[in-house]
Amino acid sequence: MSTEPITNNEVKEVSQQNTPKQPKKETKKEQLKFLVKTPKGTRDYFPKTMNARETAIQTITRCFRRHGAVTIDTPVFELKDILTSKYGEEGGKLIYDLADQGEGEKLSMRYDLTVPFARYLATNGVKKIKRYQIGKVYRRDQPYMTRGRQREFCQCDFDIAGEYDPMIPDAEIVSILNEVLTDLEIGTFRIKINHRKLLDAIFVLAGVPREKFPAIFSAVDKLDKVSWEDVEKEMVEVKGLDRAVAQKVGEYVKMHDKPKAMYQKLVDMKLGETAKDAMNDMKLLIEYCDALGCLDNVEFDMSLVRGLDYYTGVIFEAVMVVGNTSVGSIAGGGRYDNLVGIFGANKIPCVGFSVGLERIMIILEEKLSKSSKLHEAQTEVFVASVDKNRLINRLQYLNRLWEVGIYAETLQRVNPKIKQELRDADEIGCRFAVIFGGSELEEKKVVLKNLITQKQLTIDDDKLIPALVYRLTHKDTYLTEDPEMFATEEEVKQFKQVRHQLNVFN
Amino acid sequence: MSTEPITNNEVKEVSQQNTPKQPKKETKKEQLKFLVKTPKGTRDYFPKTMNARETAIQTITRCFRRHGAVTIDTPVFELKDILTSKYGEEGGKLIYDLADQGEGEKLSMRYDLTVPFARYLATNGVKKIKRYQIGKVYRRDQPYMTRGRQREFCQCDFDIAGEYDPMIPDAEIVSILNEVLTDLEIGTFRIKINHRKLLDAIFVLAGVPREKFPAIFSAVDKLDKVSWEDVEKEMVEVKGLDRAVAQKVGEYVKMHDKPKAMYQKLVDMKLGETAKDAMNDMKLLIEYCDALGCLDNVEFDMSLVRGLDYYTGVIFEAVMVVGNTSVGSIAGGGRYDNLVGIFGANKIPCVGFSVGLERIMIILEEKLSKSSKLHEAQTEVFVASVDKNRLINRLQYLNRLWEVGIYAETLQRVNPKIKQELRDADEIGCRFAVIFGGSELEEKKVVLKNLITQKQLTIDDDKLIPALVYRLTHKDTYLTEDPEMFATEEEVKQFKQVRHQLNVFN
Repeated sequence: MSTEPITNNEVKEVSQQNTPKQPKKETKKEQLKFLVKTPKGTRDYFPKTMNARETAIQTITRCFRRHGAVTIDTPVFELKDILTSKYGEEGGKLIYDLADQGEGEKLSMRYDLTVPFARYLATNGVKKIKRYQIGKVYRRDQPYMTRGRQREFCQCDFDIAGEYDPMIPDAEIVSILNEVLTDLEIGTFRIKINHRKLLDAIFVLAGVPREKFPAIFSAVDKLDKVSWEDVEKEMVEVKGLDRAVAQKVGEYVKMHDKPKAMYQKLVDMKLGETAKDAMNDMKLLIEYCDALGCLDNVEFDMSLVRGLDYYTGVIFEAVMVVGNTSVGSIAGGGRYDNLVGIFGANKIPCVGFSVGLERIMIILEEKLSKSSKLHEAQTEVFVASVDKNRLINRLQYLNRLWEVGIYAETLQRVNPKIKQELRDADEIGCRFAVIFGGSELEEKKVVLKNLITQKQLTIDDDKLIPALVYRLTHKDTYLTEDPEMFATEEEVKQFKQVRHQLNVFN
Repeated sequence: MSTEPITNNEVKEVSQQNTPKQPKKETKKEQLKFLVKTPKGTRDYFPKTMNARETAIQTITRCFRRHGAVTIDTPVFELKDILTSKYGEEGGKLIYDLADQGEGEKLSMRYDLTVPFARYLATNGVKKIKRYQIGKVYRRDQPYMTRGRQREFCQCDFDIAGEYDPMIPDAEIVSILNEVLTDLEIGTFRIKINHRKLLDAIFVLAGVPREKFPAIFSAVDKLDKVSWEDVEKEMVEVKGLDRAVAQKVGEYVKMHDKPKAMYQKLVDMKLGETAKDAMNDMKLLIEYCDALGCLDNVEFDMSLVRGLDYYTGVIFEAVMVVGNTSVGSIAGGGRYDNLVGIFGANKIPCVGFSVGLERIMIILEEKLSKSSKLHEAQTEVFVASVDKNRLINRLQYLNRLWEVGIYAETLQRVNPKIKQELRDADEIGCRFAVIFGGSELEEKKVVLKNLITQKQLTIDDDKLIPALVYRLTHKDTYLTEDPEMFATEEEVKQFKQVRHQLNVFN
């Protein structure tokens, strides 16, 4: 029913300013002192886009639920103090604050769903939970809408909080991430894994001074975008690291391989006591992931850093792969054992990941745009009349259809032309039309038309619901008077129950 | 898996300050300079609450979709100018602004979904759409959490935009609102209807000076909470209306009745030319609603005003009814033909309503709390072992179950006790357990246990999936070796397809 513009908001904004398409409205537009657009870095979602998004969210939810997860929700804004200093220097700058309107509380929009989750655990005294949360987060970042980088965007988070035996939750997290990306059918992906403490150990071994760790982390973090030469240059020339130390760091972080092979390489390198805990963790992780059958898409990548300050153990990142090159991160996460403790509650170990829905949707929408006829609405039956002044009858038919749960519409005109009605039905994508005129009404008959085959059948009016229910439940579109092809009273009742079912109490 | 506190956030906040339960942690708590709570007027949603909310949202969505609606999404904040002066004096004060962080755009949180929808139509040049939108809105109102009055809350909106023949969309709106509230099974409700222009006409007839209209509207608006005497007093003593005029207004606005009866009364009163348009609208509305079979719960109430400035025609409000008294508004809406035009686009007539989810949920959660055993997760099968060091085997079983789409979990311990495992399974609410020890593994057998009947059956390991799939698809929990009660290979394949189905392209 709506038109979906190809141009994005940024383009529209300009064109709205520059192209006065309707000269008549000029005076009115001049009176309008502001642009009618969405804020910078945000967008409207159109019906087709929303259908695709909701389907993707359902797929992701199904994976999460399959692993026994429950869902929660937290406010879109938090007390500013809750969010401050959890995201590292870069992240901190990007937090949206609310204006002080005399409320006595300083508030900020959530930057991710992880810190609010940790706050949730602390506030509510929850000691263990396997939860997912799907919601919008906000960053005052430079927006690149076409690459899916927005200021308002949706994240799908899965986390396991609580005391468990080492690495079992971590392995399940990898397994779930693998299932989510597989079920979404987005193409080839790779899940990179690494360990914060392994990075620490390697920096120690290479001789990086402890105070330079954050600076060198952030340099290594760029390795997926720029060459090692550039990273080394930054380390030496900008961050003041000794060249020999930088080269030693390079020897380690350039390594990546299949998990078991990479683990063996590190064992052979004899990293010693410093790396022992991290190596034990990685050993268990790989063993458990193997048992869970999710190692095929996993790569042990020593250059994986992940910028956020709160990670303490294993870290993950999922990337799309084209040929042999990884393009664009689509999910990330890791273990953060100290975050909940910061909020004054008992220390509660946590591990989890976040899927960035926007980048996933760019891939899925591209696939979607290639598929043939796509309808925004799900209307099944269009009610039409061939002669004038039948609006009341059309409304009565609609009521009967809605009453059993059939998705139905009619043209909202008193006296539409039948051609216009059928054009509308086709545009919406209805499979059937119910058509009548005065003569049918008199004889208590009605025409049922298949809008795809263009075949039609005149039936007794009281057979209309049974005929439609049969075809909708059997996904059959064949029209015949065969008595087998009409739903029984019991079947209509069942259909109605299923269509109207409210599941609150089951 | 989580604990759901009975106390609300406000209570927690105080108790967290005053009750140092763990003296050991005192030092840490002292270091914490801020309260770990949600912002004033907001709350966390726990898993059980979320399950109930999502079920309610599904029910509402199904009603909307049945009428051919599509969905859209808009940003949580808008340019401040877009929202300003659309909500009347009272509403305007309650808008949340974002802080100016050097972005060059003044932003505010959305106050409802209607103004953003009108902005959406104007920005994207959409001329007609039947859309629903479910999302959070924000008001800096005085929060009364227990009565469902929050600063962050969810609205479910349905609107029809576009040029149609008079009152057909309006009648469909009443019909949908009626269906939504019926399907939600929240108890007895009533949909009040009135017309803005009818109120205007009555004020003219009563002799209210034009400049006093807004003040007198706002006085009448209180009639559902206070007595007519108090309203009259406010009109005369505070708003300076002539007592005779106030009494005349009272004669009209105290009237309410079944739609047809009320309409006839107004006809008999011969309101004349001033009320002609509004009376024509009401005549058609009642006629069409009758054809749509949704008049039973409708009442024509002359005191219905609805505060928002943007309404131009028919207005609605749904209230819960206990005995003969209406308690609390749960939905509201009306026609707003000029709002889109304000944004410089062509005038696009609109009509719609908004269901306030929070009040609905207070009613549903109360019902919910009376129902017996309720589980937060949907896990179907728990994997357990009776002897030590079987974690890898448990993970392998999990992988097999997840692979076909069965919802499964295990205890995240290396060596759990079987008692603990079964307790956990029961807590989660699993129907089945898969149990094995070394002897079963050697003989390639496994024990399938029904956790409700406590009956169990030892079967060949390769029969496990067929046995579970049969019972999950047939909702059967009976355990037997009857070969009929194992799914065929084809059925397992189908089950897997259904469980993993991604519907983007159908």
